[in-house]
Amino acid sequence: MKINPAFVNIGLSPIVEISERARLLAPEFEKSGKHFIYFQRGEVGFDTPDYVKKAISEAIHDKKLTKYPKSGGEPWFKDAILKYLSELGISNLNRENILCTYGGQEGLQLAFSSFVSCDNEGRIVGGPRVLGFDPIWSCMLENILPYSGSSIDLVPFIEQRGNLDVDFETLERRLSEADILYLNNPHNPTGKVFSAEELREINRLCVENGVTIISDEAYRDIVFDGNRHVSMLEFPGDHIISVFTFSKAFAATGLRVGYTVTRNKDHIPLLTRAEYTQTAGVVTSNQHGFKVAVENVEERDKWINYMVAQLQGRRDVLYEEIKRIFNKPVYRPQGAFYFFLDLNPFIGDNIPMEDRDEFILEKFLEKGIAVIHGSAFSKERYKGYVRISYSTIDEGMILEGIGRMEEVLNSLYH
Amino acid sequence: MKINPAFVNIGLSPIVEISERARLLAPEFEKSGKHFIYFQRGEVGFDTPDYVKKAISEAIHDKKLTKYPKSGGEPWFKDAILKYLSELGISNLNRENILCTYGGQEGLQLAFSSFVSCDNEGRIVGGPRVLGFDPIWSCMLENILPYSGSSIDLVPFIEQRGNLDVDFETLERRLSEADILYLNNPHNPTGKVFSAEELREINRLCVENGVTIISDEAYRDIVFDGNRHVSMLEFPGDHIISVFTFSKAFAATGLRVGYTVTRNKDHIPLLTRAEYTQTAGVVTSNQHGFKVAVENVEERDKWINYMVAQLQGRRDVLYEEIKRIFNKPVYRPQGAFYFFLDLNPFIGDNIPMEDRDEFILEKFLEKGIAVIHGSAFSKERYKGYVRISYSTIDEGMILEGIGRMEEVLNSLYH
Repeated sequence: MKINPAFVNIGLSPIVEISERARLLAPEFEKSGKHFIYFQRGEVGFDTPDYVKKAISEAIHDKKLTKYPKSGGEPWFKDAILKYLSELGISNLNRENILCTYGGQEGLQLAFSSFVSCDNEGRIVGGPRVLGFDPIWSCMLENILPYSGSSIDLVPFIEQRGNLDVDFETLERRLSEADILYLNNPHNPTGKVFSAEELREINRLCVENGVTIISDEAYRDIVFDGNRHVSMLEFPGDHIISVFTFSKAFAATGLRVGYTVTRNKDHIPLLTRAEYTQTAGVVTSNQHGFKVAVENVEERDKWINYMVAQLQGRRDVLYEEIKRIFNKPVYRPQGAFYFFLDLNPFIGDNIPMEDRDEFILEKFLEKGIAVIHGSAFSKERYKGYVRISYSTIDEGMILEGIGRMEEVLNSLYH
Repeated sequence: MKINPAFVNIGLSPIVEISERARLLAPEFEKSGKHFIYFQRGEVGFDTPDYVKKAISEAIHDKKLTKYPKSGGEPWFKDAILKYLSELGISNLNRENILCTYGGQEGLQLAFSSFVSCDNEGRIVGGPRVLGFDPIWSCMLENILPYSGSSIDLVPFIEQRGNLDVDFETLERRLSEADILYLNNPHNPTGKVFSAEELREINRLCVENGVTIISDEAYRDIVFDGNRHVSMLEFPGDHIISVFTFSKAFAATGLRVGYTVTRNKDHIPLLTRAEYTQTAGVVTSNQHGFKVAVENVEERDKWINYMVAQLQGRRDVLYEEIKRIFNKPVYRPQGAFYFFLDLNPFIGDNIPMEDRDEFILEKFLEKGIAVIHGSAFSKERYKGYVRISYSTIDEGMILEGIGRMEEVLNSLYH
């Protein structure tokens, strides 16, 4: 007997690692009277809305929902999701299309683990061959893909004149070698929101190549400038699995409720049994909390509108400052709560590419700023890039942080 | 690409299936004015203690514990567990020995999935080779073992004169072919509580054979007649992984908090990363709830003593009735909340062995009683046996149910 390689192959989260470095440095730094600024976390700083918290308390105390959940999700939870999806224009679904999960994380883990790739004789050769966009959410690289034994191939966005575009030519070529396309929309770490046209073309190419789409829509509610999020579920077909969570939209990352939806009714029972095997189901009272979260339309819309307006305000402040500092077009994020910035133009040629992550991290940490190095979001690219998250800090802190970043960047040549 | 066989191989729970049959039959049956009696469920009928529920509400509202948990469990959760274990005489452990999980289920799933078995050249040939006692918890057979790709070999207890003894001779022989021993103490479905001497000998044999012990102690608090539960953690060694849950002891199956403990400090980080990959951690507020559940010693002991006394009272009522009806020695359960009964002496020889499960189920369902057939807890044995659970119904209903069972059994020959 030995340890399962899938367990050994899981990596450590660079975000956890940098947060730990920041935690150790912060007390010394804060002796200067200044705050340490946490640009690294994918956490949401807002308090979870009160009506959702109350619904969980009621579930526990009044409704006595402290007993085993129904495997795959309570019928009343699924019904609330169906109603919510139909409000969003996603219809012709029923309970058999839905699985309740522990956040988006479990939905993704189960979806990827549910497939294996085979050789020409049909023998299993490993997890699925996954194609994704570059950069990609770090947790995919460190956790979900290694745990499911998946291989990953990445297609970089085309970044020019402040746009982030899909390289359809490369995508089409690489799809012929893929089992699954991983799509994250809105996109972490760039904040890109895919247009309906892009999604339609991506879907067309996947259908053409017999590729399954696992669509990570964790940030679906966080879209700016009055634009609408287009879910992959708006396209027909059994090849699409969309993964959602309440973690980001309801500032409830620790309450761990999400759901996975596919039109493929044969797949949900498989995912359901695996979910049951892993956890025996999602905390019953929290399912009630998020049933109320979506059913109370007035509170829900008030909350989401408030949060998105706040985040958009922060995005605007950051964008103006970054444009000024960079003095060239940069991508203006359309959703989620991240900027992904190329700092290489500020870094002297004397710093070799392989040292740039640590060089940048160190310079920023010295000034009391934690960021994530860009290469955490890629297999081989984005050294000298950083991801900055604006979800946990307010506009004042953002201005303070960006001011310090400017100082660091200006000092790099000297 | 195809579906991962581990997902396909998971079975359907016989308990869920029978509960569903009962649910469909109950309305018609109850027109007679009698209640349907649910002897099938491993659920706990008591309400979750109020002080635990309040602690969860406080966690959500006052402490704002709605954000990402620390991977593997909150330090304050682990500290509460360490203090609790040391009260139980289990010491020399620290935070690095503990993983917080979604109930016992996730602890078991992760523990089994964390290993693979190899051939003589060290090539992986599948999940671990598991040895267990027969009968065995049905979820192991249907879910946890297939999901981890494990094979299972079972050693029946020696049942004689009302005793259920370990067949050490067979155990020793079979251990040489095993990677893992699965031990469930107190034991579902028999209610057996292993003695300290039995555990010592089991451990000795496992050490001798280089076998890892996964010790499922889900019912550790439910031990009768003033006896003490002996945890496998009381024995030294890195080869022991003990899995605990608050589901049964705190009547909180839907709040989904448990913990896994091993002296092997190299193994916890592996389990932690896999747990993080699967769920991103256990609901933060519920971790707080069970921190308070164990730390408030006065409320805790009052509650556990009350519940165990209630269950022991039901056990006594059932035992006396069963002894009378069977008119021979039957095993008197020492813990958990099940009886596992051989009904074959009541069944006419005209009913072939392979039909006996359905025959018994049908006869009982007709009389408004749901039970689980014995062969659900075995690979090939225990046809004509049933498991009856007394955790969800009170003494009055138990007497009503056992009276009906007696009628059924008396009618079988006619």
